[in-house]
Amino acid sequence: MKVAGKPRTTIWEIEDGIEVIDQRLLPHKFATVKIYTYEQAIEAIKNMTVRGAPLIGAVGAYAVYLMFKQGDGCIENADKIIKSRPTAVNLAWAVECVMNSCCGVGDRTDAALVTARQIVADELERSKKIGRAGLQIIGDLWNSNFGKPVNILTHCNAGWLACIDYGTALAPIYAAHDHQIPIHVWVDETRPRNQGASLTAYELGEEGIPYTVIADNAGGFFMQTGQVDAVIVGADRVASNGDTANKIGTYLKALAARESGIPFYVAMPSSTIDKKIKTGDDIVIEERSADEVKYAFGLDTINNVQTSVLLTPPHAQVANPAFDVTPASLITGFITERGILSTNQL
Amino acid sequence: MKVAGKPRTTIWEIEDGIEVIDQRLLPHKFATVKIYTYEQAIEAIKNMTVRGAPLIGAVGAYAVYLMFKQGDGCIENADKIIKSRPTAVNLAWAVECVMNSCCGVGDRTDAALVTARQIVADELERSKKIGRAGLQIIGDLWNSNFGKPVNILTHCNAGWLACIDYGTALAPIYAAHDHQIPIHVWVDETRPRNQGASLTAYELGEEGIPYTVIADNAGGFFMQTGQVDAVIVGADRVASNGDTANKIGTYLKALAARESGIPFYVAMPSSTIDKKIKTGDDIVIEERSADEVKYAFGLDTINNVQTSVLLTPPHAQVANPAFDVTPASLITGFITERGILSTNQL
Repeated sequence: MKVAGKPRTTIWEIEDGIEVIDQRLLPHKFATVKIYTYEQAIEAIKNMTVRGAPLIGAVGAYAVYLMFKQGDGCIENADKIIKSRPTAVNLAWAVECVMNSCCGVGDRTDAALVTARQIVADELERSKKIGRAGLQIIGDLWNSNFGKPVNILTHCNAGWLACIDYGTALAPIYAAHDHQIPIHVWVDETRPRNQGASLTAYELGEEGIPYTVIADNAGGFFMQTGQVDAVIVGADRVASNGDTANKIGTYLKALAARESGIPFYVAMPSSTIDKKIKTGDDIVIEERSADEVKYAFGLDTINNVQTSVLLTPPHAQVANPAFDVTPASLITGFITERGILSTNQL
Repeated sequence: MKVAGKPRTTIWEIEDGIEVIDQRLLPHKFATVKIYTYEQAIEAIKNMTVRGAPLIGAVGAYAVYLMFKQGDGCIENADKIIKSRPTAVNLAWAVECVMNSCCGVGDRTDAALVTARQIVADELERSKKIGRAGLQIIGDLWNSNFGKPVNILTHCNAGWLACIDYGTALAPIYAAHDHQIPIHVWVDETRPRNQGASLTAYELGEEGIPYTVIADNAGGFFMQTGQVDAVIVGADRVASNGDTANKIGTYLKALAARESGIPFYVAMPSSTIDKKIKTGDDIVIEERSADEVKYAFGLDTINNVQTSVLLTPPHAQVANPAFDVTPASLITGFITERGILSTNQL
């Protein structure tokens, strides 16, 4: 997708390494970071320079390549890469995938590079396919809207910045825009980390897609008043029965969508389905730092520095669950690289 | 209620005027503002030194008294007071009430003061009665909890800071605390103006009532997981059929409460019922400044100044509806000074 009119991906190869977008500075500053060692890759994952499961997986895969290139290739160092974000299932998978491809081969550096490239190419292809599958839904909505713009509400950031390109929840939106379907996106701010207000708004703006940022509180109002045609969100983990863990607040929007008869879609690669987990009851919800809720992070426009402001009393008690579980019964369908699936097709 | 252990109200008389708490500085700084003229009263309403319908009404009532005291008593100046917050129905009512009480009396300054005091006393009494009515609900929950603490979720600030004392939605909580019922409050942050994270958290903390601030996105999760016994919110306007306009996001919490079988109460003086309005469809929803969503306001803890940070791209399109309408069908009951009312008792 585009940044300042120029096509970009979130990660690309440079001589002797890789380069990524520094996502901590968005939407206020576009800057990139060059990574030449596996230690730098670990740091970029740890300090949130890169975020989003597919992108973290890609950086992890290249980190294994860099590790062999440095002559530091061993299982202990691979484990350090995995541990840079312990809850990221996709990171562990990508690192193990590259490690396995190096087993018993002559040039392990070369083998690792080939596998890392393949992981990135596969990820890209999955996003494209999710976009194509979702395009059909948006096209149908456009027809039933008698040609009026289609209004999609999304939560958090499941766009190209979380992936290599295109995204998951935003992939159908980019595909529709490519096909000249007029579209407008309601962007939930997504407190406490504000990925909607910062990243999703940035992505859509750079691509020239009309969007409107709203407080997380406002989505119900826009659904009640007939201003939303469909909701599309991403997923962190989908249980076998279709119960879906996604960014905290997703569940509230799913309730409002059902109440107003609005279709609610989850867009994700089918690798997000965790067959080991029967229902949402078995999904453990991660508790994140209280400071995310106590503070808001943004740009001090007077001094032009990014900083945090305290919102609560200094010693306020805070709870910060990162995800909630949307029951399968509230989900119209799953937009995957295998097409649009119903719960019993998962 | 208490601030730093000392009993306080939001407004009190001083020699030649009134004094109010500067609510713009909370929760980071407690300071008060002295008001000696009706022009200063208008300024305090306009610049949000005072907020909350009952408190604004009280300041407006005293402003009429100050106006006569200054020798500036006339209908044009009374109108200026009303226009300091055009959407506040209660302000217009209070100003007109004081003006009418001065009609054809000898000492209009004295008459205005008597009426202003009466308005404040009545407001205080209504809050107390709302607290007493709601106490019964919380007591019943405590019994059915087998003595475990009662968990109440609230949205925005409908506490003593919005009133003279006690509040509306928080009045039952203060009453329960007074009666040694163990209670814990889930405090919605309430973006975009963060009245929950700042004012409600401050009020409860100063009173020694356990509370936990959560992102607006998180309430559904806590209800799903059995950690909420009841929801109590305030109201800006209640239609004849019970449809209730309140701070944006209230509707989403009402949906989640119904889904989890949790009672959802609206606490308000019965003057909030607008008999002229049949249903929620007739309530006009105010659109507020885009900057409220684009920025977050809080304390820069490094420089110890209160400031704003930009969250979105600088030219982001934003929508900011201030209220939403919760249909009467989602409301368990109305906690009023007349007792607990069902929809058909309104």
